[in-house]
Parts: sequence; structure tokens; C-alpha cells
Amino acid sequence: MGQPLERVLILGTGLLGTSAGLALRAAGFTGSITGWDKDSKQSGIALTLKAVHEVASDPLEAARASQIILLATPVYAILDWMEQLSGVLGPGQLVTDVGSTKAVITTTGNRLFNQPGRAGFLPGHPMAGKEVSGAAEADAALFRDAVWIFTTDPWISLQKEGDISPEAASLGIEWMQWIRAFGCRVMELEASRHDELVAWVSHLPQFLSTALTALLQIELGDAPELTAVGGRALREMTRLGSSPYSMWRDVAYTNTEAIAAAIHALEQRLAHLRENLRTPELRDEFEIANRFRRGGV
Amino acid sequence: MGQPLERVLILGTGLLGTSAGLALRAAGFTGSITGWDKDSKQSGIALTLKAVHEVASDPLEAARASQIILLATPVYAILDWMEQLSGVLGPGQLVTDVGSTKAVITTTGNRLFNQPGRAGFLPGHPMAGKEVSGAAEADAALFRDAVWIFTTDPWISLQKEGDISPEAASLGIEWMQWIRAFGCRVMELEASRHDELVAWVSHLPQFLSTALTALLQIELGDAPELTAVGGRALREMTRLGSSPYSMWRDVAYTNTEAIAAAIHALEQRLAHLRENLRTPELRDEFEIANRFRRGGV
Repeated sequence: MGQPLERVLILGTGLLGTSAGLALRAAGFTGSITGWDKDSKQSGIALTLKAVHEVASDPLEAARASQIILLATPVYAILDWMEQLSGVLGPGQLVTDVGSTKAVITTTGNRLFNQPGRAGFLPGHPMAGKEVSGAAEADAALFRDAVWIFTTDPWISLQKEGDISPEAASLGIEWMQWIRAFGCRVMELEASRHDELVAWVSHLPQFLSTALTALLQIELGDAPELTAVGGRALREMTRLGSSPYSMWRDVAYTNTEAIAAAIHALEQRLAHLRENLRTPELRDEFEIANRFRRGGV
Repeated sequence: MGQPLERVLILGTGLLGTSAGLALRAAGFTGSITGWDKDSKQSGIALTLKAVHEVASDPLEAARASQIILLATPVYAILDWMEQLSGVLGPGQLVTDVGSTKAVITTTGNRLFNQPGRAGFLPGHPMAGKEVSGAAEADAALFRDAVWIFTTDPWISLQKEGDISPEAASLGIEWMQWIRAFGCRVMELEASRHDELVAWVSHLPQFLSTALTALLQIELGDAPELTAVGGRALREMTRLGSSPYSMWRDVAYTNTEAIAAAIHALEQRLAHLRENLRTPELRDEFEIANRFRRGGV
């Protein structure tokens, strides 16, 4: 239908963007990968790691010359790029992203792209990451065995109606094949369902770990030798306490309601457990938790 | 001062007891290790793994013939053993344990042992474990790089006063040397300080993980395929959700006040974070958490 994928641009060569470049290479992609980052140190590292072939001097010009533009920045920067790119791209091109929340991005994508005469937009979210950021932490295997979600709700109907060009649709299908080649399982979800689900399985664990870690800093921060006592369990439960505010601020702003509901439910659950430390209800709580784990998480 | 350690009895050959037998062997202990468990399947596994040389048919008789008796069961079973053993042991013997809370055990130890003409009691707590139990999960390296706490508050003064026999004191010192040979850092703390500290660094992470995991089971348990979306962060934050009620019930009962205070503080911290998802306070919360992690947890 369209041209095979030969020219990719990655805007934002941090942990995810640089890992995507490395994963493309590792999966056998032989086309060109151009990178750009507002922090030239990050794009320099991506170049050194051979995650990208070259660093763009002008990202919009590089976008014009690419078939797929991968937006790999925090959510608000993705939205900014979408605005800028919508003026310079055409129907033979596809924009996709790795943003952590999808409702705002998907709505914006359908407004700015996915219309006759315009580029396509395929909203994506790999459920992979680290508590540390930056190109130097990138790993070709970061996405292996992870789920990569696409919130393509209207994608098929938009194609049928001709709002998405055959070229862009073809690039979207090819991109999903590369994602599978990374070792990912591709899952398609409605954007609103995605945001509700990740509030439970991704955002709640993050904000919970941040709250726990901040609490321990306040309680024990003046006696760090005591935190060594905690061992593996403490290290695991506070690992996400290292996560950068810059990324999670955008998540908190663009999925506030679902996150607040999940945190509130956990507060209530903790209060219930606390009030039942010496009653048989505690057994029930452990049994329910055991059941979840037997489900194979 | 006393006889070198040659005969050890491990009462409770589950995860910790069997791992202690394996660790003794790995560290070069050439004496005899006898094991006993109320579940003969567990002691059978410990024997197969060569963590123990033999399984006792009568645990009290085996205790009479041992120099060190290691109690490696949940807290209330430890207290039961202490009562039973206090009638049959003498001043040349030492009882020690791996119980998760120490105030009740230490007080009981000083009442039943650590008196003229009686065996010594050295309260211990290795800060190591797994979310799964049983001898089959045992590992000689389980204690490597862990902290092994002894709550010996009155140990030295009791020795001086002659309440602890020189033989028992000597066995206690030798036991600590073996613990160091396991790769542990030995730390001595007051029992009340121990219980307060582990409420933060061990019990809070456990009960928090149980509450989170139970909540996710209730929210998502009917769609387990969706939990695959969570990835590593979710797996880590819910790992302790597999922990057995049988052990943690005793912890909850014997350290209720400190645990309730820690959980309550976390509820308040979560509420604060939830109310500030869209304010600059969120940045402060991430920065405090980041600081704890930079402390080297």
C-alpha cells in the first residue's frame, strides 16, 4: 500500500526514545534513524550508543523528511510537538508516541491529524520504563515481554472513512510489527479505558511508592544507616521513589480524576487493614492479596 | 570459656530455619545440625537438602542434647517453644531465634531464661526473607549482605551479674560469629527500638503491599489479563502480596501500636499527595522521596 519504512525520527532521545532506537536496530531495522532532544547531551549519548544515525539540527525539517515521527517525551511536550508538527506534515506520514496517559493525546491526535490531507496519528504507550531517566540508561531489551498499548479506538473507522490515508495506515501497521519484533505484546484499548486501567496498575504504584518513600525520608532520613535494615522489600517498595517529577507531573495533570480515585481507595483499604490488625479480617485481606498473586502477576 | 559449638538444633525447618542450616554448612560448620518441624514434609525437605543431618523424633529430647537451639517459627510458636524449653534446658545451653518482633520475645526470654541456673536466651532477627515460605525455598545465600539484629539490651549486664552463665555467653558470641560468616552485618538494638524501626522499614512495606494487592484483586481480579499491563513496577509493588498470613498475623498482634501508627501516617501522606496532584506540592513530595533514595537505600 505505502512505501516500506525507511526513515524514522525520534523526538526526545531520553530513556524510552533511545531504547526504541536500540530496539529497532536490534530487531533488524536497516533504515535511517534520526534523533533530536532539547538537551543536546541526550542526543549525543543516543548517537554514541548508535541508537540514532544522526542528530537533527532542525527537528521540524527532519520531521518533514521522515515517514514515522516517534514522540518520546513527557505528555505535555508530546502535545506541544503535535501542535508544531501538524502544520508541517502530510498524508504520507505517521506520528506516534509513548506518552503515559492517552485520553488527551488521543483526542488531540484526532483533532490535529487523522483527517483528509493530513498525517496519521497512532497513540501508543509501552508499559516499560525505569525509575531513572536519560539516554545513558537506554536498553534495547527494555520493551521485551512488555505490553505496548495502542489507543486506536477510531483508527479503523477513520481509515474506512478515508480520514487516515492508506500510506499512514500502512505505516501504522508496519510500526506495530516492529513493536512486536521488540518482544512486546500489542494490546489495543480505548483511550479512556487505558487511562482508567493505568491509574490502577501504573500510576497508583508510582504515587504510592513516592508517598511511602517521602514518609520514610521524613521519619528516618536523619539515620540512613537504619534504612539498611529494611533489605530487599524496602528497596523494592521505594525504588519508584527515584522517579522524576518532570514526567509524573504531566501524568498527574492529565489523569487526575482516575489517580485521585485510586489513591483514595487505597487510603480506605489501609484504614480498614489498620483497624483490623487484631481481627480475623486481617486473614481475609491476606487471602485476597494472595489470590491476586496466584493470578500470575 | 565454654565448649566450642558442635550441636545445633533448629526448631522449625521452614524458609529461615532451613536457610540457616544451609548457611552454617556453607560457612564451614562441621558439627551436627538436627532439625524438627511440626510439618514432617518440611523437615524431610531440610534433610534432603542437607540443611540438617537428622530429623529429631522428640524435639524436647533433642533440645536437651544440643548447645544452641534456634527457634525459626512465627512469633507465637517461638513463645510456645520458649515455655516448653525453659523446663528442660540448663545453664550450658543457649536458645536464640529469628522472630520478626522482639519486645515480647525479649521480655519473655529474660523471664524464662537469662537467670542463674538456667539456659541463656539471645533474641535475634535476620532482616531477610522471601514472600514465599517453606524449606523448598531455602537458600544458603539468603542472609548475605543482610542485617541480623540482636536485641541484647540487658545481655551484657546480665552476664556481669552472673544471670547468664559463661557457657551460654560464650555460645552467644560464637553464634554471632557464625552469623557474620553468613555474610550478615550484626546490629544490636534495644528491643523496643527494634520494633519501632521495623514497623517502618519492614512491617509498613508488607501491610502496604497486602492492601494494594487486595485492592487490585478487587478492582481487576475479574480481568487478570489486564494486570499484565502493569509490568515490573506492579510486580515489585505486589510481590509481598504473596506473603503468608500465618507469619504476619503474629507480627500484627505483637507490634500492633507501632504498625498502626505507621499505616496511619501513610494514609495521611497519601491524602496529602492526592489533594496536591495539580499543585507545586507534588514536586516537593517527589523531591523528598528522591532524597531518601539518594541516601543509598
